[in-house]
Amino acid sequence: MVDVAVISIGDELINGFTIDTNSAWIARNISKYNLLDVEDKIILKDDSNKIKSSIDFLLKKQYRFIFITGGLGPTHDDITKNTLKDYFDCDMVLNEEHFSTLKVRYAAHIPLNLESIKNQSKILSISKAIPNDKGTALGMLIKHKKTDIFIIPGVPRELECMFTQYIAPLYIDPYYDKKNKYITILTTGIYETKLYSILKSIIDINRNRFKVSFLPDYTGVKVRISALDETGPLSFFRDEIVSKIKKYVYGYDNDSLEYIVANTLIDSGLTLAIAESCTGGYLSKKMTDVPNSSKYFIGSVVAYSNQIKIKYLGVPESLLKTEGAVSREVALAMAENVRNKFNVDIGISTTGISGPSGGSIKNPIGRIYIAIVTKNDKVVKKFDLIPTRNYHRKIGVHVALNMLRLLLKI
Amino acid sequence: MVDVAVISIGDELINGFTIDTNSAWIARNISKYNLLDVEDKIILKDDSNKIKSSIDFLLKKQYRFIFITGGLGPTHDDITKNTLKDYFDCDMVLNEEHFSTLKVRYAAHIPLNLESIKNQSKILSISKAIPNDKGTALGMLIKHKKTDIFIIPGVPRELECMFTQYIAPLYIDPYYDKKNKYITILTTGIYETKLYSILKSIIDINRNRFKVSFLPDYTGVKVRISALDETGPLSFFRDEIVSKIKKYVYGYDNDSLEYIVANTLIDSGLTLAIAESCTGGYLSKKMTDVPNSSKYFIGSVVAYSNQIKIKYLGVPESLLKTEGAVSREVALAMAENVRNKFNVDIGISTTGISGPSGGSIKNPIGRIYIAIVTKNDKVVKKFDLIPTRNYHRKIGVHVALNMLRLLLKI
Repeated sequence: MVDVAVISIGDELINGFTIDTNSAWIARNISKYNLLDVEDKIILKDDSNKIKSSIDFLLKKQYRFIFITGGLGPTHDDITKNTLKDYFDCDMVLNEEHFSTLKVRYAAHIPLNLESIKNQSKILSISKAIPNDKGTALGMLIKHKKTDIFIIPGVPRELECMFTQYIAPLYIDPYYDKKNKYITILTTGIYETKLYSILKSIIDINRNRFKVSFLPDYTGVKVRISALDETGPLSFFRDEIVSKIKKYVYGYDNDSLEYIVANTLIDSGLTLAIAESCTGGYLSKKMTDVPNSSKYFIGSVVAYSNQIKIKYLGVPESLLKTEGAVSREVALAMAENVRNKFNVDIGISTTGISGPSGGSIKNPIGRIYIAIVTKNDKVVKKFDLIPTRNYHRKIGVHVALNMLRLLLKI
Repeated sequence: MVDVAVISIGDELINGFTIDTNSAWIARNISKYNLLDVEDKIILKDDSNKIKSSIDFLLKKQYRFIFITGGLGPTHDDITKNTLKDYFDCDMVLNEEHFSTLKVRYAAHIPLNLESIKNQSKILSISKAIPNDKGTALGMLIKHKKTDIFIIPGVPRELECMFTQYIAPLYIDPYYDKKNKYITILTTGIYETKLYSILKSIIDINRNRFKVSFLPDYTGVKVRISALDETGPLSFFRDEIVSKIKKYVYGYDNDSLEYIVANTLIDSGLTLAIAESCTGGYLSKKMTDVPNSSKYFIGSVVAYSNQIKIKYLGVPESLLKTEGAVSREVALAMAENVRNKFNVDIGISTTGISGPSGGSIKNPIGRIYIAIVTKNDKVVKKFDLIPTRNYHRKIGVHVALNMLRLLLKI
């Protein structure tokens, strides 16, 4: 394997106020190349001595690529560029082309901070500029012996664009082939221990050929597989695993439940409306995260107060009194009525107790009823989820999407 | 300062499939102690040699605390515990108390995986057990010379509970005082460069006493201040900064716009209803993320299709025809009508083009109209935000909350 290192720079990363998503993004993209592998991942303060000694340490290892992100912004605490200038003992030069571009791009900003724009257009004399289409700081490439060092702004949108548009096509793609080294099997509705006990024998038999990792999360367990020898037929192994756990598998790799459900709705021309109580708009938000959601999603009523359940969803007041708002019957009425009123194929509803208050012996915090009504089906299920507000809402939405997936037989 | 190190272990962290939020969480909590400072943050593969050499490296530095997270789960790729057993050359012992607790806790799980529960109850003979109230893997404390090494599961909920309930109260709080070392001033509606130019002179004058960092983000810029000498009156410096940028400041530290707005609504007894088009439930979701949101939030109509705008929000069909769904007039009608129909004090609406399709010369992707109607006010504003679906929706919701904040004069 050819080794790659990623350095993320920023006081806020080391003190934990900001979560380092950049190094993960870079690593994920590096993992797409057959021979490239991230070997070192380091988080550093805005401290020039620490930065210099880490670069020194990594250059000695003769890695093929080093990615350095962060600390290229316009303010005084952005010290990466000057630190590198010191380290490589070179000059700073103005990139006239970028400077002109920025002057045009920010012409409408009044007052135009020309000094700042000029600074952002300067690069190390030993470097090659990498354009920044989404922000002001230029990226840089420094070729040092066998190592390509890329210096990239820490703003995720700028970094992602710079990598995708310029770095990968010019400096990685010509030299390294891409290969699916990993397949991630997405499961939901089964515990990690149970999944492991079902798969243990396959894993053991294939121990020398394939690696299997379990990544549990509140919404399910991801099973990630990779081949240990270069020629491993990963897709066969995937199929073998999936055949044992089929009903829990909802997708692969970057699939998400909402995209999978959305695609099926679009393909089959079905329309959807939602009546939400405890999830308070979260399920609708998920369903509209997907581009072209207007093809299947008509609208929702977030019926947080009982008055709205009665007035706008036509839930009988008597039902709310006898059964309570958090009940099988009210969930069904909500789904059925939003389906009829919005004139759609599928109505879904949620009603539950997310907490922190509102729990009772009859309905403890964590309970949720989810109903789905279609032309031929009426399903309502009760779940007791993690009794913490944010988890409860998040998992509740995931469970509702999974119920819809199972009903659509995806 | 007394130094702390954090090691996060997991293949999925190094290849970027999982983002390391644990080390950030620990670092943020460590930063609350006056004398403690995270000095090293390392991410490692599930590779026993790498784990051993990193522990070796950090133990030589004689740090006060080392936190090791991840790799304590029940499956074959969880190697942290066995690696440490090798490193410290000790035995593994069963913690009977935890084993009994787990047997009771998981009695309802059929089949009960006794072997797995037993494994999860074993700890290193040289360690002290740290209870895990939220999961199966026991935590451990190993005292090695001057260093306390904490080994904690990588599941965030388990880690957070273990740290808060057991580690901090028993092993940190008795020895170290807490102090607000940082104040974060939250701003929105102003660019980083402009903010910096306003504050540059104060920052320069105080350069030797206070450190100021700018943390830009799509929803605003955070200004984080800290004192360089131990006695620095941080709150005075904060007030000096805030006085220059008052109208952009919406809160401090962990405040969020939705909590700030929610608290004001609760205090003033005002109620709210929402009519969402392009944000598709996201604004309602944000307003109900806050506990006790039923005190002010009545409900919403997510009127994604024009039919719902007409039928359930009473937007005149003629208005939709002459002005289009994405217009000042329709935004106002939506806010006004949801306010009347839901009988609340405040009606808010959003209508716009989040993309990727639906843009036109009249209304390009990125445009959004947001309206707020109260008894005395009618405000509608047009914004052109980042024309990428997820950013557009996220920023749109933030801008709507900020408009509400300004209207409520918070």
